[in-house]
Amino acid sequence: MTQEIITLAHGSGGHAMQQLIEQEIMAVFANPLAPANQATEDQARVPLSLLQAHSNGMGGQLAMTTDSFVIDPIFFPGGDIGSLAVNGTVNDLAVGGAKPLYLSCGLILEEGLPISDLRKILQSMRRAADDAGVAIITGDTKVVNKGCADKIFINTCGVGVIPSNIQLSVKNIRVGDVLLINGSLGDHGATIMAMRGDLGIDKGAIRSDCNGLNEQIQALLEACPGIRCMRDATRGGIAAILNEFAQSGKVKIQLKEDSLPLKAEVRGLCELLGLDPLYLANEGKFVAILPEAEAQAGLTALQSFSEAKNAAIIGRVLEPETSMAPVLTMRNAFGSERLIDVPYGEQLPRIC
Amino acid sequence: MTQEIITLAHGSGGHAMQQLIEQEIMAVFANPLAPANQATEDQARVPLSLLQAHSNGMGGQLAMTTDSFVIDPIFFPGGDIGSLAVNGTVNDLAVGGAKPLYLSCGLILEEGLPISDLRKILQSMRRAADDAGVAIITGDTKVVNKGCADKIFINTCGVGVIPSNIQLSVKNIRVGDVLLINGSLGDHGATIMAMRGDLGIDKGAIRSDCNGLNEQIQALLEACPGIRCMRDATRGGIAAILNEFAQSGKVKIQLKEDSLPLKAEVRGLCELLGLDPLYLANEGKFVAILPEAEAQAGLTALQSFSEAKNAAIIGRVLEPETSMAPVLTMRNAFGSERLIDVPYGEQLPRIC
Repeated sequence: MTQEIITLAHGSGGHAMQQLIEQEIMAVFANPLAPANQATEDQARVPLSLLQAHSNGMGGQLAMTTDSFVIDPIFFPGGDIGSLAVNGTVNDLAVGGAKPLYLSCGLILEEGLPISDLRKILQSMRRAADDAGVAIITGDTKVVNKGCADKIFINTCGVGVIPSNIQLSVKNIRVGDVLLINGSLGDHGATIMAMRGDLGIDKGAIRSDCNGLNEQIQALLEACPGIRCMRDATRGGIAAILNEFAQSGKVKIQLKEDSLPLKAEVRGLCELLGLDPLYLANEGKFVAILPEAEAQAGLTALQSFSEAKNAAIIGRVLEPETSMAPVLTMRNAFGSERLIDVPYGEQLPRIC
Repeated sequence: MTQEIITLAHGSGGHAMQQLIEQEIMAVFANPLAPANQATEDQARVPLSLLQAHSNGMGGQLAMTTDSFVIDPIFFPGGDIGSLAVNGTVNDLAVGGAKPLYLSCGLILEEGLPISDLRKILQSMRRAADDAGVAIITGDTKVVNKGCADKIFINTCGVGVIPSNIQLSVKNIRVGDVLLINGSLGDHGATIMAMRGDLGIDKGAIRSDCNGLNEQIQALLEACPGIRCMRDATRGGIAAILNEFAQSGKVKIQLKEDSLPLKAEVRGLCELLGLDPLYLANEGKFVAILPEAEAQAGLTALQSFSEAKNAAIIGRVLEPETSMAPVLTMRNAFGSERLIDVPYGEQLPRIC
């Protein structure tokens, strides 16, 4: 490309768009199912037999999920909107027990976006896809006038296969189960918070945990055949997903405050700004609910990954209290217990 | 919802988002695979056996495609951004010979969007999905600050199954084949053009052709077993897709000017504004290339649909001329022939 910025012509269906797609997008995403010289088909095709091969018997399921990414800023310590867009969708598939396989990539570009920024983001998507073992096989590019979007929005939709022997659901949660998290809370939310505005905070001190979770989850599934369900803790933090678990599972969930892994720099930012790390977004953290008997095996499996060396058992599932709705609570070191409600809004918009 | 407009809290992962998703989105999209009371799983699941059932043997393929929609205005005669988002993805699947089955819906909402507008758009998506026989089974909602998007952007990603007996590809095009279109050119582009700015044109006089094509295409596939390939003519008009056909098929394609179906009001707008209908966007038109022997059967099959009663044979495939790149040309009633190039940009941005 000789042009340096995205123009409206790049979204028009003509020469300029063809060039952008071939030279910048397909050149980066090229793979056997979406070869760089086949920009001319409107759809990607995958033999059903390839899906069936991941099914481990006849009862396998196709899993499908989508996420749009509108994060501001688009580059941040530990990642960018591209790695986020791939990892977010990979993780939504993986926590359901699916092997993530294929992704789509829908780009909405603002007129004026430097093409060098787009290139960095696409390369970052490709790296994240390679790391997670998924292929980006189809896509779409739109351009809107300056001021009608903010630099770049990315939608990814992902499909994967849940093998027939994996049956995860919040409905499986039982009283006595324990909660396992794969590392420290709130790194992503704290990173974006520190990047915004003029807080006088060292913007490089905290790094997002943006990361694909499918390998960690695969190891956990192998170590813990009795695992009930998992969920990645993104917008709304672990408070949001654990409240969902409590409601859907009709149980009480109790966190143990002094067991929650928290990086010193995230704790510092939370104290400075009066934030609660339970509500901070994560982009490489998930909570699994599993039988207590498998807790140690799960911990050991996760801690073999460098990104999950702070994995911890952070709470347990209790009988719901009579005449009360299912709740999430946290018990501190002195034995007092407080209610952790669903957040109403987010502490920070456009976190992902 | 008691609130009247979208606020940042609706995109936050908290109570407000949960309410929006349950009361406005899941309530409209509810279907057996995405029931209104299961907003709590991050992914939709479809038994692989359901896909296999559409495969007609063991050689079936999963087709996957995505499109983002950023059209301005979001409501227009003949449709809105919601019907467009469903039909656009349904059509991208159908032209590849796939039976469209499942869609995702990624919403990017601008703070301040009236919830009544969102509701209308979601209902329109549901109607289009029902008409096309597809289910919207998974989704995502993000909200960005006022001024960081324009009202609403929608991404849909679709999957479908191509039965094992269907093998469409531009590589199949042969010299002597004919081109079949299912109706008049440029209705969508002309409609949006008339809506914009202050052209002094009656804004209701032209209607978009926004429409799901899978039933027409199914009928055509049954009537014409020798069909080579199809493509829907959206951004860039038929000029863009026929140039792609000529290049990929390494042939010359010649249009016959007086055979092109064109509504009087679209012709009028084109004359007024100096536009070429070959480059105008369509949202319910496709071109099929098929053996001449099947042309009449194809015409008859299409013309049984009220939206395709103006279907016509509009051109033919010729030997490429020596020492020239493959080209698209148009021959007028007096026998003179002119080159139809790929458009560089679009006559109008944000047409879809």
